[in-house]
Amino acid sequence: MGNTEGPVQSVILVSCPDQRGIVARVAGAIHEVGGNILDASQHTDTSSGMFLQRIHVSWPEDSPDPESIQEAMDELAQEFRMTWQIRWEQSLRKVAIFVSRQDHCLHDLLLLQRDGALNCRIPLIISNHQDLEDVAARFGIPFHHVPVEGSHDESAESAQLSLLKAHDVDLVVLARYMRVLGPNFVNQYPNRIINIHHSFLPAFAGGRPYHQAHAKGVKLIGATAHYATAELDAGPIIEQGVIRVSHRDMVSEMERKGRDIERTVLARAVRWHLEDRIVVHDGRAVVFS
Amino acid sequence: MGNTEGPVQSVILVSCPDQRGIVARVAGAIHEVGGNILDASQHTDTSSGMFLQRIHVSWPEDSPDPESIQEAMDELAQEFRMTWQIRWEQSLRKVAIFVSRQDHCLHDLLLLQRDGALNCRIPLIISNHQDLEDVAARFGIPFHHVPVEGSHDESAESAQLSLLKAHDVDLVVLARYMRVLGPNFVNQYPNRIINIHHSFLPAFAGGRPYHQAHAKGVKLIGATAHYATAELDAGPIIEQGVIRVSHRDMVSEMERKGRDIERTVLARAVRWHLEDRIVVHDGRAVVFS
Amino acid sequence: MGNTEGPVQSVILVSCPDQRGIVARVAGAIHEVGGNILDASQHTDTSSGMFLQRIHVSWPEDSPDPESIQEAMDELAQEFRMTWQIRWEQSLRKVAIFVSRQDHCLHDLLLLQRDGALNCRIPLIISNHQDLEDVAARFGIPFHHVPVEGSHDESAESAQLSLLKAHDVDLVVLARYMRVLGPNFVNQYPNRIINIHHSFLPAFAGGRPYHQAHAKGVKLIGATAHYATAELDAGPIIEQGVIRVSHRDMVSEMERKGRDIERTVLARAVRWHLEDRIVVHDGRAVVFS
Amino acid sequence: MGNTEGPVQSVILVSCPDQRGIVARVAGAIHEVGGNILDASQHTDTSSGMFLQRIHVSWPEDSPDPESIQEAMDELAQEFRMTWQIRWEQSLRKVAIFVSRQDHCLHDLLLLQRDGALNCRIPLIISNHQDLEDVAARFGIPFHHVPVEGSHDESAESAQLSLLKAHDVDLVVLARYMRVLGPNFVNQYPNRIINIHHSFLPAFAGGRPYHQAHAKGVKLIGATAHYATAELDAGPIIEQGVIRVSHRDMVSEMERKGRDIERTVLARAVRWHLEDRIVVHDGRAVVFS
Repeated sequence: MGNTEGPVQSVILVSCPDQRGIVARVAGAIHEVGGNILDASQHTDTSSGMFLQRIHVSWPEDSPDPESIQEAMDELAQEFRMTWQIRWEQSLRKVAIFVSRQDHCLHDLLLLQRDGALNCRIPLIISNHQDLEDVAARFGIPFHHVPVEGSHDESAESAQLSLLKAHDVDLVVLARYMRVLGPNFVNQYPNRIINIHHSFLPAFAGGRPYHQAHAKGVKLIGATAHYATAELDAGPIIEQGVIRVSHRDMVSEMERKGRDIERTVLARAVRWHLEDRIVVHDGRAVVFS
Repeated sequence: MGNTEGPVQSVILVSCPDQRGIVARVAGAIHEVGGNILDASQHTDTSSGMFLQRIHVSWPEDSPDPESIQEAMDELAQEFRMTWQIRWEQSLRKVAIFVSRQDHCLHDLLLLQRDGALNCRIPLIISNHQDLEDVAARFGIPFHHVPVEGSHDESAESAQLSLLKAHDVDLVVLARYMRVLGPNFVNQYPNRIINIHHSFLPAFAGGRPYHQAHAKGVKLIGATAHYATAELDAGPIIEQGVIRVSHRDMVSEMERKGRDIERTVLARAVRWHLEDRIVVHDGRAVVFS
Repeated sequence: MGNTEGPVQSVILVSCPDQRGIVARVAGAIHEVGGNILDASQHTDTSSGMFLQRIHVSWPEDSPDPESIQEAMDELAQEFRMTWQIRWEQSLRKVAIFVSRQDHCLHDLLLLQRDGALNCRIPLIISNHQDLEDVAARFGIPFHHVPVEGSHDESAESAQLSLLKAHDVDLVVLARYMRVLGPNFVNQYPNRIINIHHSFLPAFAGGRPYHQAHAKGVKLIGATAHYATAELDAGPIIEQGVIRVSHRDMVSEMERKGRDIERTVLARAVRWHLEDRIVVHDGRAVVFS
Repeated sequence: MGNTEGPVQSVILVSCPDQRGIVARVAGAIHEVGGNILDASQHTDTSSGMFLQRIHVSWPEDSPDPESIQEAMDELAQEFRMTWQIRWEQSLRKVAIFVSRQDHCLHDLLLLQRDGALNCRIPLIISNHQDLEDVAARFGIPFHHVPVEGSHDESAESAQLSLLKAHDVDLVVLARYMRVLGPNFVNQYPNRIINIHHSFLPAFAGGRPYHQAHAKGVKLIGATAHYATAELDAGPIIEQGVIRVSHRDMVSEMERKGRDIERTVLARAVRWHLEDRIVVHDGRAVVFS
């Protein structure tokens, strides 16, 4: 942490049962170990009485002694039955992108990462088709073709998991990956697999959502970025967007319009995850803006 | 039709199996009986091959001989197996508004009608509660309190239907009327009952949609105006809108935010219906903008 | 403050030059005098180095000793060169609404206040026309007709100011009041006069913005709620909204569409002001959401 | 035109002083020479009394005798003082894209064209910098680096014009090309140069619009696609979009958010131009949706 010029920054996430004085005590503890709070957001879930907080801290070059910080926060944690984590800005997470044949979401993620807007490394792209190998090549990212047979191909999932482990992947992004991942896979990355579903969930879960939307005659179509869970298309919703359609739009036109929503919604969700803005509580994603 | 100065206007709606030359033939027929086409919109439903058209026609003061028009169009109708209707701008339709306790949608409809933005008369308001009697009174509209017991109160529906018949009502608007109307009622006014549902249908059909949306943690909430059918919340969708919410929004705040969407979406749907912009085909509402 | 059941709440706003530890120190001070921080938002303006914070505090029934709070905060204020204010939830501000002939914004404000969504009292409505006297009467609010002659009617402004003083008004809302207020008037209520301008400022400042927008052929029209300053249509922007228009929309149709945006944007701005969510710094309005 | 299977399609645009019967006469003429009207949209500009129409026509394989069509339309044109044009679906226009250093708009246009969503060929990309040469190379499009010196580099413009002539270019797209083109250049391509300006015009015309927007504290930022005219940022507006910003957004964050709007708005404008949906009349762009 001493290899950058100027102050270093980190994000601390805490959650505990709501108690009087918690905000002041956490602020005080961070202050005592030398941190300067740049921004703090909190939310109390009134039904469960759970207090959630995201604190963006700046540490002067000479101060952030990780051990003292750990000690101070652990002490608080014990007193308030609190869980907490700290992420240092410089520690880049490793993201694997899964794709099938469509490249609009992939392109956006790769361009954003290249431009420094996604604070991560992308060590690999995995696909059940070979179509996007050249896109990966252009961006200099290793591409792994893992063919998938049938609806639950355990050997394919096992190969994918091996790749993820080998690259020590922190986050999986399903960028219009058109296969369902089994519970065994999903449960190994709780709240660390982000999927983009091309509808305004919970409307039109499952397959062919644009066909469903067209048949129903809706006037807006949407896209939903959510964490994948074992239950299909039912995980915590991170972000949603919509665009207007009319009777003039055939399914193919809906698909075209939808792509703009899909890629912006997915990119936003990935960005927020990497900025530690999301806390999942009680099946819902709290996003600190 | 001779009691206004200047040209009179009408809207003609036609539907028939799509055939080559249909646009030219209809335009020609209207021209021959003296009409000037101000605007024409058409849509061909490719799955069923059905041609739908809305034609806005201006007639010079001396020309619109309704009988000749009828004759010319009937001739075409026979040739093309076409159904058609004409509505003269001056013939105001009679609209009944159903409400319960909330008045935000009612207020908007009454203000719009007063300002001339809804081409109709509103001969009565019907409610299962007495709360909004004073609002009706302020606008000088007769208010009928029809209490409703249980989930299917046939005598209440029968009283409501009598009122509609007595006032020769053309359109029923359910402006946050919190009761379900039975199939017998609904089937007597096909595509002539407009309901506002406070969710982005088909998500969150049924009761308490804001509670459902909150539990699900969605990031946008919506409202849907649709024609009522015997199947609850499943009729043809006329218009939809959404507004952004976050984890900070309790159900009560969602309800408050939702009200702005509900009233604008409902007002737009009623307006379009009264401008004869909506044709229902194959369970979907085509809206000619 | 002892006349309500349960804890009382207040909003504290502070601003001072940004300094390390400020967040922790303010939180600590509030905690020490018995307050529990429900929510705190802060913003540091990087160009001026100014720290701005809004703190929502809950006080137990027996604790909020206003004098101790005052003392503790004053001490901090001296140390950090801080300005601060506290507003108790129960102290309702007095709002005067100015209107001309159009009532859509007025209606919305009155309905919201009646429903408890605006934390204020509305002791009077002032208008340069008599048209909306009956609306005021329906809601039981005194209506004052102050005719205005020419472009700078000092005697009218003087009469209006007397009314505001007599009613000890805290906030003036110009709800489509179609006259310009002079600098003498405006300067007496800095950041306490909210105007709704019917365009997306800074585009189309000045008169007849929909005519300007139509002439220019824009594809979106907007509305802007801002604090009034001596420079016309140039005060700090609080909120903005837009709606889509097309070449089909005549100026009159733009006006109709615009009304929905105007009233929702104005209502939001007034609500945020009354919730002490707005801090003006360096000519810009920071809105803590 | 006989080299495709199935019927061929074309778009006919007509404009003339509004006259009774014009819709029927044009429809009749097209019908007589064998065309089947798939879709027709019209607009009458009420201030100038000008009638504008876009007609989408399908012609059976054996029928479209271009000479008869020309003859029939010319006859009508003479009678109604009408200007008209026909564009056959198969005749692909040639589009030149101008860029500087930013590639988000370029990428979107190239991906859309590759996917068949832009009915055109892209024979060349011209830039005042070399940064995006590799992007052009990936898509196999010749890249021409034309350095530009100072604010009016006539020799550079002359080199650019030569390239456009050599490739017989129909449409120029300025995809975040950060130089101003002189009147001599612009006037050679009237309504055939599409620019994306990164603000909601007419607000923030000229340079550094995000800096202007930030200084002003607006709550929405926008992008505007318009035809370039000799007057900077004042040409007919084709399409606009907005996105929400807050005081938290620095200029750099506004730029990032703005990019999503810029690229979608520009892509839509280019698409509509290539589908012959735009007619410029009296300085405004009428877009037939």
